[in-house]
Amino acid sequence: MGADMKRAEAILALPVLELRDRLASGALSAVELVQACIARIAAREPEVQAWAWFESDYALEQARALDALRVTGRPIGPLHGLPVGLKDIIDTAKIPTEYGCELDRGRVPKKDAYVVERLKAAGAIIMGKTVSTELAYMRPSKTRNPHDPAHTAGGSSAGSAAAVAAGMIPLAVGTQTGGSVIRPAAFCGVTGFKPTFGAIPRRGVLMQSPSLDTIGVFAADPTGTALLAEVLFGHDASDPATTPTPFPRLSQTALSKPPVKPDFVFLRLPGWEEAEPDTRDALHELVAALGDKVVELDLPAPFEAAGRERKRINFAEMARYYFRYGRDAADTLGPEVREAMAEGEAVLARDYLAALDWKPVLNAALEEIFERCDAILCPAAPGPAPRDVETTGDPVFNGLWTFCGLPAITLPLLTASNGMPMGVQLVGADGNDARLLRTARWLYEWADQ
Amino acid sequence: MGADMKRAEAILALPVLELRDRLASGALSAVELVQACIARIAAREPEVQAWAWFESDYALEQARALDALRVTGRPIGPLHGLPVGLKDIIDTAKIPTEYGCELDRGRVPKKDAYVVERLKAAGAIIMGKTVSTELAYMRPSKTRNPHDPAHTAGGSSAGSAAAVAAGMIPLAVGTQTGGSVIRPAAFCGVTGFKPTFGAIPRRGVLMQSPSLDTIGVFAADPTGTALLAEVLFGHDASDPATTPTPFPRLSQTALSKPPVKPDFVFLRLPGWEEAEPDTRDALHELVAALGDKVVELDLPAPFEAAGRERKRINFAEMARYYFRYGRDAADTLGPEVREAMAEGEAVLARDYLAALDWKPVLNAALEEIFERCDAILCPAAPGPAPRDVETTGDPVFNGLWTFCGLPAITLPLLTASNGMPMGVQLVGADGNDARLLRTARWLYEWADQ
Repeated sequence: MGADMKRAEAILALPVLELRDRLASGALSAVELVQACIARIAAREPEVQAWAWFESDYALEQARALDALRVTGRPIGPLHGLPVGLKDIIDTAKIPTEYGCELDRGRVPKKDAYVVERLKAAGAIIMGKTVSTELAYMRPSKTRNPHDPAHTAGGSSAGSAAAVAAGMIPLAVGTQTGGSVIRPAAFCGVTGFKPTFGAIPRRGVLMQSPSLDTIGVFAADPTGTALLAEVLFGHDASDPATTPTPFPRLSQTALSKPPVKPDFVFLRLPGWEEAEPDTRDALHELVAALGDKVVELDLPAPFEAAGRERKRINFAEMARYYFRYGRDAADTLGPEVREAMAEGEAVLARDYLAALDWKPVLNAALEEIFERCDAILCPAAPGPAPRDVETTGDPVFNGLWTFCGLPAITLPLLTASNGMPMGVQLVGADGNDARLLRTARWLYEWADQ
Repeated sequence: MGADMKRAEAILALPVLELRDRLASGALSAVELVQACIARIAAREPEVQAWAWFESDYALEQARALDALRVTGRPIGPLHGLPVGLKDIIDTAKIPTEYGCELDRGRVPKKDAYVVERLKAAGAIIMGKTVSTELAYMRPSKTRNPHDPAHTAGGSSAGSAAAVAAGMIPLAVGTQTGGSVIRPAAFCGVTGFKPTFGAIPRRGVLMQSPSLDTIGVFAADPTGTALLAEVLFGHDASDPATTPTPFPRLSQTALSKPPVKPDFVFLRLPGWEEAEPDTRDALHELVAALGDKVVELDLPAPFEAAGRERKRINFAEMARYYFRYGRDAADTLGPEVREAMAEGEAVLARDYLAALDWKPVLNAALEEIFERCDAILCPAAPGPAPRDVETTGDPVFNGLWTFCGLPAITLPLLTASNGMPMGVQLVGADGNDARLLRTARWLYEWADQ
């Protein structure tokens, strides 16, 4: 390995905050960082296949412009010079955004999505578009798990998770309607953060199920996700799930020390019995090590219904908002979307409305739990990434939190017996994203000791 | 007629603002006003039957307490001493709230609705509960039209409109999901104001169709409705249709002179061809008298769908939220609610969602019209109140505005050939309630000259 390459590898191994600081001090240029990313992409992309659209010149041009601005003493914002990957269901002006869908091949939006506007304003480098499964649903994509290409990278934000895991980019954006941020992050061994529903405006993002669709972020560690998410949180009148709220201070809070050691509730979710022994053992070991900071609980009976009701909402809204795909793309559409839409088409409005009414009921039941802890602790997935590229894995431990709209984060703290990474999922109270990130960082560092 | 009775009649003939001013100056006491109302109720109630719950002592006790406060120089608020009637689907603590429904006979809420809290805080006298049709839908109630008891008072806010029209109370609150404020107000010859959707929080009000249900107000004239509505506008976290907004200044704006003579668009709505000759003639006469301040327009084709789509939403949500009535009250429930629910039960979620998507489309089409005028002018109903107490009349000219969520007001400016009152409906742009009220007052006074 040449000296240049060694230096590039060393750069890509740095935590995001360190990258940010070196970019700020001039110790590192955006061009050098982007070149390191490009080199890594060149090396790993043939195997990992994380990218739906990537052109090195597009990234380098932004890096040069940002370096020039830095030299004049006018850094743009908190992400100045940091490369970010965007799931290919997020609109980017003049750059293809194809939804992972044959019918939308060659689709080039005129306008940036809200999150892209925010990233550009914060000085981030739009590195390219990462692979999404077809229409952000369950059809497996071409992306492979960077830890072992025989394993799935998960879905639907497969490319975002895999690109960060492979060190191609320090930061990426994805979305979750069931488990599409937490699951691929856990499978690929990175941190994935799905904020409170409505925290990040969805203007310009493919609408699958507006009652559930949530934008989330990926980084190696929780402080990285806090840095990125903070830039994206906001209000946009076109997204009725968002509300005007004060600046979230995610980064500062995530970096602060909890006033006391955090309390956790280890929650056995519906499906826990079917989790793989690796997952159960690792979780039990973690819980034992945390000692009296953890209380174990089973979820009360009504939660058994949550999975079914979430699906009903998801599929009914999919039947509405993917109408055009059912009509025009029946030939090319995978069986996953087709079957979900067929199920959704049969849902009655009154049952759909009844399903929506579960959300406040479940949240009321969870409130009591959040009075007793800083975060719920549970597995991110039933096991490590399946050794099967014909599946995206099982979102059984994710859908509930998406349905309830609660902030959730997965931390790459566990390893399966086959060496594949596994995630620990933490779930916070509604709107308490900053505190969840602080707790996550505490656990991340505690586990590192 | 004795001198006392003459004085009472004179009091009840005063405009609301005059009542307010006399109460403020001490020229009139709340007790005297309430006694006048009680006398009128005693005289007219056997025929009109506007009240679901009324006890004179309850009203008098409030009046005495408010007079005592006034004497100490501490008037409570802008409605100090003014009696208000409340549609019997609005919860009142310790006072029956029976939804006009057999199954809820004897139901007594523990808590006041949001609007009742606001009325009490503003110093209003809760006069009693006015008759609602069964579950605020189309089954005719016992209430009769004060102008002629052989005619319907309309629905569903029949009691609120009739009580104000009969002079029993100066102010009343009702609700509209299709045409339940504008229609009874027009039939009874009073002013009815249905604000922008979400302007008045619905906490504690029977939920029939949360995408449509709107609280509205009744008074003799538009300035009265502005005075009352201003107190009720607000934000409540429990009602997702409401948002934090600045104080609306409805009253002040309604009383102000428009900077220039207002412009109107006379809109021929779907159904205009079936309006009765009386209505068409009277409207044409009014439009002719307004001269070049009116432009005539037909609504574009997509609006043909509005009635059907509004019904779909209404019935689907009714099937969900009146579920308990379908299950427990099938014997006593009238055919109107049963048939609407049966229709709603068959609505598919995707069609329901598609119906909801019409709202922004229709509003976008209307925006162009509102750029050219201060208010849309159209009939409030196809004709005067039908001479038939087995109907509540036809909401054909109301549903569109409820669906679009636009503020609408009916003014008692027209008279049919049989002497019954007819309403002129004005519709304003989304959120422009204050300007609509100002335009309405201008038209009300112009027509009076």
